[in-house]
Amino acid sequence: MVSLNRISEICGVSLSTASKAISGKPGVGKATRERILSVARQHNYRPNQLVHSIQRGRSMMVGITCSQFDDEFAGKIVAGIFEVLYEASYDAMVIYWERNVQEGVRALGNLAGRRVDGILMFPPAAYPQGAYLEELRAFPNPVVVVDQTWPGCQYDLVGSQDVEGAFAATEHLLELGHRRIAHLGFTHGSTGKDRLLGFQNAMIRHGVAIHEKWLRDIQSYPSEEAYELTRELLSEPDRPTAIMCFNDEVALQVLSAAADMGLSVPKDLSITGFGDLSLVRHVRPQITTVTQDPREIGRRAAKLLIDRIEAKHQKQPAPVASQDRLPARLMVRQSTGPCPQDA
Amino acid sequence: MVSLNRISEICGVSLSTASKAISGKPGVGKATRERILSVARQHNYRPNQLVHSIQRGRSMMVGITCSQFDDEFAGKIVAGIFEVLYEASYDAMVIYWERNVQEGVRALGNLAGRRVDGILMFPPAAYPQGAYLEELRAFPNPVVVVDQTWPGCQYDLVGSQDVEGAFAATEHLLELGHRRIAHLGFTHGSTGKDRLLGFQNAMIRHGVAIHEKWLRDIQSYPSEEAYELTRELLSEPDRPTAIMCFNDEVALQVLSAAADMGLSVPKDLSITGFGDLSLVRHVRPQITTVTQDPREIGRRAAKLLIDRIEAKHQKQPAPVASQDRLPARLMVRQSTGPCPQDA
Repeated sequence: MVSLNRISEICGVSLSTASKAISGKPGVGKATRERILSVARQHNYRPNQLVHSIQRGRSMMVGITCSQFDDEFAGKIVAGIFEVLYEASYDAMVIYWERNVQEGVRALGNLAGRRVDGILMFPPAAYPQGAYLEELRAFPNPVVVVDQTWPGCQYDLVGSQDVEGAFAATEHLLELGHRRIAHLGFTHGSTGKDRLLGFQNAMIRHGVAIHEKWLRDIQSYPSEEAYELTRELLSEPDRPTAIMCFNDEVALQVLSAAADMGLSVPKDLSITGFGDLSLVRHVRPQITTVTQDPREIGRRAAKLLIDRIEAKHQKQPAPVASQDRLPARLMVRQSTGPCPQDA
Repeated sequence: MVSLNRISEICGVSLSTASKAISGKPGVGKATRERILSVARQHNYRPNQLVHSIQRGRSMMVGITCSQFDDEFAGKIVAGIFEVLYEASYDAMVIYWERNVQEGVRALGNLAGRRVDGILMFPPAAYPQGAYLEELRAFPNPVVVVDQTWPGCQYDLVGSQDVEGAFAATEHLLELGHRRIAHLGFTHGSTGKDRLLGFQNAMIRHGVAIHEKWLRDIQSYPSEEAYELTRELLSEPDRPTAIMCFNDEVALQVLSAAADMGLSVPKDLSITGFGDLSLVRHVRPQITTVTQDPREIGRRAAKLLIDRIEAKHQKQPAPVASQDRLPARLMVRQSTGPCPQDA
């Protein structure tokens, strides 16, 4: 990449004159300025942002750590983040971290080494802990946590009303007359824990017994476990008449397991998802789910991080960590119906 | 972030001594070195990679430009890319670019300004052109293009054998006796053009007429257009008995349109997808498709880019652009069957 030094050599001017001409500062004659700018254009000169970052003491770059890109939900959050970063002239360094803690630690260290002004963190599926958490604490700039959180997390969170959304989905099943409701969860993360809580709250509120054998948990995600767990659940003589699922992808596996066992949805079995991914509209029956707004989650998380970065640069005291949870609303489609009469 | 300057002040040593101690260079006594390292640890000092980047004349950072994250295919490519970058100690600056050309130009300029050593480029859905292409040409470091390409592209490409994959899917339908085969494409991009070509090649090879009215094209992606186009195609009296789809997501919409019209798949209609996303295994009937290997595409693209970067730093002449296309193989599932007898 051509340097400013080289531009000044070509033009036969000092480095300082070339710098003034290019950054639009006074002290350079019109003809000289135009000549310098013309040479810079010819040579595709781009101001070195690395130098600017060091001079300004801020990089105008944020870090994004993510352990899963390959679904619509995370992808839309990332799209929302980039929309706001772009408007605010921030760039993004991304760490895609899917493996062991040691790698996560190194990844966070790289963000610090690149002097990112802040981090937008999608926490790993399991709670961050140990060396990873220590490295995160050592990071001196603002951190905003996206979607998931963890016990004792002291960072701002932008996510969804998971408890409320799950509560609404469960009430919907209860209102349809279902009593034997299973919950297929993924409680290694906070969203799964919150959705289980919302389920339990609704069952308790309506005085309906929760059976431990119908609380099933997926161990790793993504996986095909939901399919097998559903076959188990539905093979028992007193099978559940409804299954509430951690998310839409789990619901899709439940739907296919039911189909393979010759059960009709929603006649024999009702199913709810969570997330409102586009795929739930494209399968038949369309899946009743809980809507989330991932793009807006991403936008708000990025805005909040930028606010925190600005506040820090203005030496304002660090604010108390906030939780901004966007509404998660029931969306009734075709996969839920009245409890079967003979159940 | 604590600076090396500050560490040297705290320790009462010169900046040069602090620098030597931390980078493990000789010329510092053992006790002094240990004291400096200990203070650096206490203050969570991280070597400033911005300074290193300038000193070395390379940033050890590559740019990734991407116009869509929110699907499994792109997500797995990105995962493969990060795997290799991590192994080779490169970081990644990501540009998520989904809007107008002007923004794309600015985004490329930002990559140049950050002095990235190379770019992994997912081309935009429509061919890159005009100012965007000019900006790309002005970028002085290696570029590797991923998945899609465009006419006249002079960069290395890592992608899939789209023509061959589509040929195999079409032959499969022909072998099942289908003659009235529609093609639901997305030919704004090169993969869609190649798949249409594979379809046409197979039809011609087998001497089967291609009807223009059954060549339908989606205008924007992602969208719900495939659903509507399918309803149109299937409403005609001499409807096709098979539809070959641009990809799995399109195939899913075709499947739901068929279901909503009371058609049974594969009895009344055969459907093929492309990509082998996990969703095609989770719907019923499971969709016959063409496999791709997105993670390996990502790995190879990143390896190739790093090779190109190394070669450039060793002043080797720029090699001729290559095309590395990974096999795309037919995967027969449940959505294809013999041509209906009465058709």
